[in-house]
Amino acid sequence: MTDWKTLLHALEEEAAGDLYGCDFLLTWDKTESELRAVWRVAEALRSLYQRNISATCFRSGLAISNFRDQSTRTRFSFASAANLLGLAVQELDEAKSQIAHGETVRETANMISFLTEVIGIRDDIYLGAGHTYMCAVAAALDDGFANGVLPQRPAIVNLQCDIDHPTQSMADALWLQEHFGSLEALRGKKLAMTWAYSPSYGKPLSVPQGIIGLMTRLGMHVHLAHPAGYDLIPDVVARAERQAQASGGSFTHDHDMDGAFAEADIVYPKSWAPYAVMEQRTQLLRTGDQAGLKALEAACLEQNARHMDWTCNAARMERTRKGQALYMHCLPADISGVSCAAGEVDATVFERYRLATYKEASAKPFIIAAMILTSRFQDPATCLADLEQRGAPRTGN
Amino acid sequence: MTDWKTLLHALEEEAAGDLYGCDFLLTWDKTESELRAVWRVAEALRSLYQRNISATCFRSGLAISNFRDQSTRTRFSFASAANLLGLAVQELDEAKSQIAHGETVRETANMISFLTEVIGIRDDIYLGAGHTYMCAVAAALDDGFANGVLPQRPAIVNLQCDIDHPTQSMADALWLQEHFGSLEALRGKKLAMTWAYSPSYGKPLSVPQGIIGLMTRLGMHVHLAHPAGYDLIPDVVARAERQAQASGGSFTHDHDMDGAFAEADIVYPKSWAPYAVMEQRTQLLRTGDQAGLKALEAACLEQNARHMDWTCNAARMERTRKGQALYMHCLPADISGVSCAAGEVDATVFERYRLATYKEASAKPFIIAAMILTSRFQDPATCLADLEQRGAPRTGN
Amino acid sequence: MTDWKTLLHALEEEAAGDLYGCDFLLTWDKTESELRAVWRVAEALRSLYQRNISATCFRSGLAISNFRDQSTRTRFSFASAANLLGLAVQELDEAKSQIAHGETVRETANMISFLTEVIGIRDDIYLGAGHTYMCAVAAALDDGFANGVLPQRPAIVNLQCDIDHPTQSMADALWLQEHFGSLEALRGKKLAMTWAYSPSYGKPLSVPQGIIGLMTRLGMHVHLAHPAGYDLIPDVVARAERQAQASGGSFTHDHDMDGAFAEADIVYPKSWAPYAVMEQRTQLLRTGDQAGLKALEAACLEQNARHMDWTCNAARMERTRKGQALYMHCLPADISGVSCAAGEVDATVFERYRLATYKEASAKPFIIAAMILTSRFQDPATCLADLEQRGAPRTGN
Repeated sequence: MTDWKTLLHALEEEAAGDLYGCDFLLTWDKTESELRAVWRVAEALRSLYQRNISATCFRSGLAISNFRDQSTRTRFSFASAANLLGLAVQELDEAKSQIAHGETVRETANMISFLTEVIGIRDDIYLGAGHTYMCAVAAALDDGFANGVLPQRPAIVNLQCDIDHPTQSMADALWLQEHFGSLEALRGKKLAMTWAYSPSYGKPLSVPQGIIGLMTRLGMHVHLAHPAGYDLIPDVVARAERQAQASGGSFTHDHDMDGAFAEADIVYPKSWAPYAVMEQRTQLLRTGDQAGLKALEAACLEQNARHMDWTCNAARMERTRKGQALYMHCLPADISGVSCAAGEVDATVFERYRLATYKEASAKPFIIAAMILTSRFQDPATCLADLEQRGAPRTGN
Repeated sequence: MTDWKTLLHALEEEAAGDLYGCDFLLTWDKTESELRAVWRVAEALRSLYQRNISATCFRSGLAISNFRDQSTRTRFSFASAANLLGLAVQELDEAKSQIAHGETVRETANMISFLTEVIGIRDDIYLGAGHTYMCAVAAALDDGFANGVLPQRPAIVNLQCDIDHPTQSMADALWLQEHFGSLEALRGKKLAMTWAYSPSYGKPLSVPQGIIGLMTRLGMHVHLAHPAGYDLIPDVVARAERQAQASGGSFTHDHDMDGAFAEADIVYPKSWAPYAVMEQRTQLLRTGDQAGLKALEAACLEQNARHMDWTCNAARMERTRKGQALYMHCLPADISGVSCAAGEVDATVFERYRLATYKEASAKPFIIAAMILTSRFQDPATCLADLEQRGAPRTGN
Repeated sequence: MTDWKTLLHALEEEAAGDLYGCDFLLTWDKTESELRAVWRVAEALRSLYQRNISATCFRSGLAISNFRDQSTRTRFSFASAANLLGLAVQELDEAKSQIAHGETVRETANMISFLTEVIGIRDDIYLGAGHTYMCAVAAALDDGFANGVLPQRPAIVNLQCDIDHPTQSMADALWLQEHFGSLEALRGKKLAMTWAYSPSYGKPLSVPQGIIGLMTRLGMHVHLAHPAGYDLIPDVVARAERQAQASGGSFTHDHDMDGAFAEADIVYPKSWAPYAVMEQRTQLLRTGDQAGLKALEAACLEQNARHMDWTCNAARMERTRKGQALYMHCLPADISGVSCAAGEVDATVFERYRLATYKEASAKPFIIAAMILTSRFQDPATCLADLEQRGAPRTGN
C-alpha cells in the first residue's frame, strides 16, 4: 500500500472536485483524472480501514439500494460501503411498494429521496432499459433538487446496467494496480477479455463491455475474443477501439480465444449472451411471451454448446505470458466439475487463482464508498485527511 | 422558515411534555397544543437538517416498522425519520416470522421491544381492525413495561389505520402552514375534501377521515363532498361537525363537488371506497370468500363508473378562489391520461401542482421524526436546543 | 443486579480472552470460565442499558443475519444486539442472492465478509446439516482471513442449529441466575426438561439438547423425560450424562413426565420431533419427496396424539417443589385453549408464568451482544469499563 501522505498528494493532483454532485453511471463519462481520483479515494478508505480508523463522515442519511435483479456480492459491497461512511441502507423493494399502482419513476425518485444521500441501482436484464432507467431517475432528482423539493441531490451509483458495470470494472482495475504495483505498470500489458462456455444463458453483457470500456483507457493491449455471433453492443466496441488508440494501447477484436490468450498478462474468460439474443429476449420479456422465451433459451443453449471448447484450461493458460497470466473473474464462475459439468474454467485453473479472485472482489466495497464520497464531498482529500487526524477507532470506544 | 429562537420559544409555550410516553394513533386524541408542539418540533428538525446540523439524539435503539399493506412513501418517511434521530430500522415481516405459528399480539409486541424505541404500524385494509390492532399492541407494551419486562415503553406511531392517517394529515397541515405562512393564516380558509373517480377499488378511508378530523380543528371551512353512498365512518364525520363548531370554522357535508370547489382555497380530490363496501369487503376477506370479493369488486367498479364526472379538471379549478386553489394529494394520484385513462385529476391540473404535491410529501419524514422525538423526550425544546448548540455536522467529520 | 465493580471484577477472573477470535457454535465447546465470561458481559451490557449508557463500541461494521428458517424472537434479538454495539444488520436472503446460481459456501462466506464483524446463522431444519453448514462457513472465513482476503475474521454466532441453540440456553441460564440469585444457587436444583404434546410436527431438537447440554454443567439435577421413541441425538444425551457426573449434579433419562416434575425446581415442558423422524424427514426433504413428507407428517401427528397426556397442567405443577417450580419456555408455547385446542401447557399455568417467560426471553439480546463483544474484543472488561467511563447517553445528546 502506498504511503498515506503520498496517496493524499496523488489525490490532490486529480480533478476529484469534478465528481462532486455527479452520478457514476458509465466509466467513459468520466475523465482519466476523475477515475484516478476514485481509485485514490478507495485506496485511502482501505488504508483507514486497515488501520482501524473510522471513515464515518455522515452522521445520518439513507443509502437506498434498488436491485431489479439478484445480487449477493454487489448487494453486500453496497451495504458495506454505505455503512463504512455512516449511511443506513434502505432497500427499495418494488414488490412491497406502491410503484405497481401506476406510480411514475419521477415521482418515486423524489418520494424516497428527501433525506437520502445515495441511490444504488442494479438494472441489467432488459437491453436498452437499465441505463435509460438510471437516466430517468437522475433527471427526476435534478428536477426535484432544482425546484426545492429535495434539500440535497442524492448521487446515483450504477450497480450494473445493460451497458456498463462500473463498480466491477473500477474494482477490477484497482486490483490490477495493486497486483502489478501501480497504474503506470499496466501500460503495455495485454488483457484477454474472452467469451467462455457456460451451460446457462442470458448472462448480461455489462461485464465484458465494462472491461473493454475501461481497460482500453489505461494503455493496455486489450484483446476481445468471442465466437461469431456473440457480439457486444457495437457502440461500446467502437468506443474501445477509439480509446485504445488514444491511450497508446491497442484493441484487437476477433474470434480466436487462443490468440487472445497468447502472451496475455491477464485473462478474463467469461460467458455472456449474444447482443442479438439479448435484444430478442428483451422483446419477449416485454410481451411476456413465455413460449418464445423457452424457444429462445433452447436455441441459445444449443448455440452455446457448439462452443464448449471456449474454456479456460491449463493448456490455454500455458499460452499466456510465461504461463503465468493473472486470471480474473467477477464471480461466481461456472467451474467445470464444481458448479457444472463443463463451464468457463477448469477446476485446477480456478483453484490456482481462487484467492486472487476473492481479492479482486474485495476492492468493490471501497470503490463504491469512493464513488459515494467523491460525489457527496467537494474536497475528498481534506475529508480523508480530517478522518485520519480525528483517528476515531472503527472498532473500540 | 421561522427564525430558530422564535421557533423554540413557540415550542416552549406548548404542552410538548404531555406527548412524552404516549403513542400517536389519532390526531383527535391530542390537544391543539400538543399538535402545535409536533409541528414546531418538525419545523425545528427541518431547520437543523437544512443547516447540516445532525439531529441524532439516540446512540442506539431500534425503530420497528410493521407494514401490513404496501407502502413506498410512508416506508421511506419512517426510515428517514428514524435514521435522522439515530435509530436503526428493523422491519417486522410477518411472513418471515413465527407469528403465523399461533403467537399472540401481546407476546410478539414484547418480544420485539426489549431494546426498541418506536414501532410504526400500517394496518389499513380491514375496517374495524387497524386501530384495534394498534390498541392491542399498545396495551401489550403497557403490560410489559409495567411488569418490568421492558426497560422502556416504545412509542407506537400510526402509519395509517382504518380510521386515521395522522402522519399524512399532520404533514399536510404543516405544508399548509408553510404555504399560507402560518397556522393562524389557515383560519377562515375553505378546504374541499372531495371524492374523485378512480378506476381502482378498495382505497382506504383514512386519508379523507384524517383530513376532516384534523382540518376542522384549525378554524377552516371544511367541505366534504362525495356521491351518495360513498360515506365515511359516521363517528368521524360527526366529530368533524363538532370540531368545526368549536374551532370557529364550519363543516359542510353534501354530494356536490362543484359546490365544494366553489371559492375553495384548497382542494383535495381523492378516491375512496364507500364505508359500506369496506365493511362487506372486510367480512369477505375474513372468510376468504374469493368469489364474493370478485363480485364486490365488479359491483364497486360499476358503481364508481357512474361517477366519472367527479374529477378534478381545469373547469372545476376555475371555480375555486380566483381559480388559484392549492391542489393537494397524498400521492400517488390517478392522473387521467397518465396513470389511467380517466381518473381523479386531469394531467394539466396535476402537472401545474406536481411540485407542490412533492413538497407536501416532503414534510412527512420530519412529522414522523417529531412524533418519535416528542414521545421519547420529555423536554423536546431542550433536546433541540442542545442539538443545535452541539452543532455536529450531519454530513462532514 | 450485581454492583458494577463486583461484576467487572468477576469478569476479570474469567478466561474472557479465550473467546477472542472464536465462534460461538456449541456451548460444550466452551469452558465453564468462558461461559461465565459471556454471562458477566451480558449482565454488564444490561446494566449499561438500564443506566442509559451507550454501549456502542463499533463505529461501523456489518452484522449479517442468515435465517434459513422462520424467526421472530431471535431475529429481533440479533438485530437488537448488533445495534446495541453499533453494528448495522444486513440480511443475507438466499432467495434474493445469486447463491442459487451454483455459488459455493466458501465463496459466499468471503464475499459477504469484507467489512463484516459478525455473522449470525439459523439453520435448524435438516438434521446433520445446520452445524455442518456453520463449520463450513467458519472454515471458509479462516481460509479467507489466513490468506489476506479478509482484513478481519468475522465471528459466527449460532442462532440455532440442528444440535444446539446456544443463544437460547445461555439466555435461559442467565435468567435462572437472576431468578435464583446467582450461578452458585443453581447447584443442586432440579430441572425437568420434558417433552410435551403439540398438535404440530417437526419442531427442532436443539432446545432440549441445548438445555441438557448446558444445565448439566452447572451442578443441577437434570431430568430428561419423553415418550418412548422421542429420542434426542444420542451423542448429546451421552454428553449430558458425562457432564452431570463431572459437575456434581445428576442426569436422569426416562419416559416419566410425573417423575420428572416431582420436586422439580424448574420445569421446561416442550414439544419436539423424534430424532428418527427428523432423520427420515431430512432424507425426504432432500429428495423432495412430497408424498413421503405428507405420509410422515400424518404418521408423526398420529404418534404425537397418543401422548396428549404429556401436558403441563395444574395437577402436574402441584407435584413440583412446594408446587412452585419455575416454568420455562423458549416461546411461542402451544397453549391449550389459546393457540390450539390441546397443547404443551394449560392456559392457567401459562398465564401464571407468562411474564416470567417474557423476562426469560429478554436476556437473549444481551447474551448475543456478549457473544459478539467477547469474540471481537480481546479484553471485554476494559472495553466495558471504558464504555461506562465514557458515559455517553444512549438516549439523549
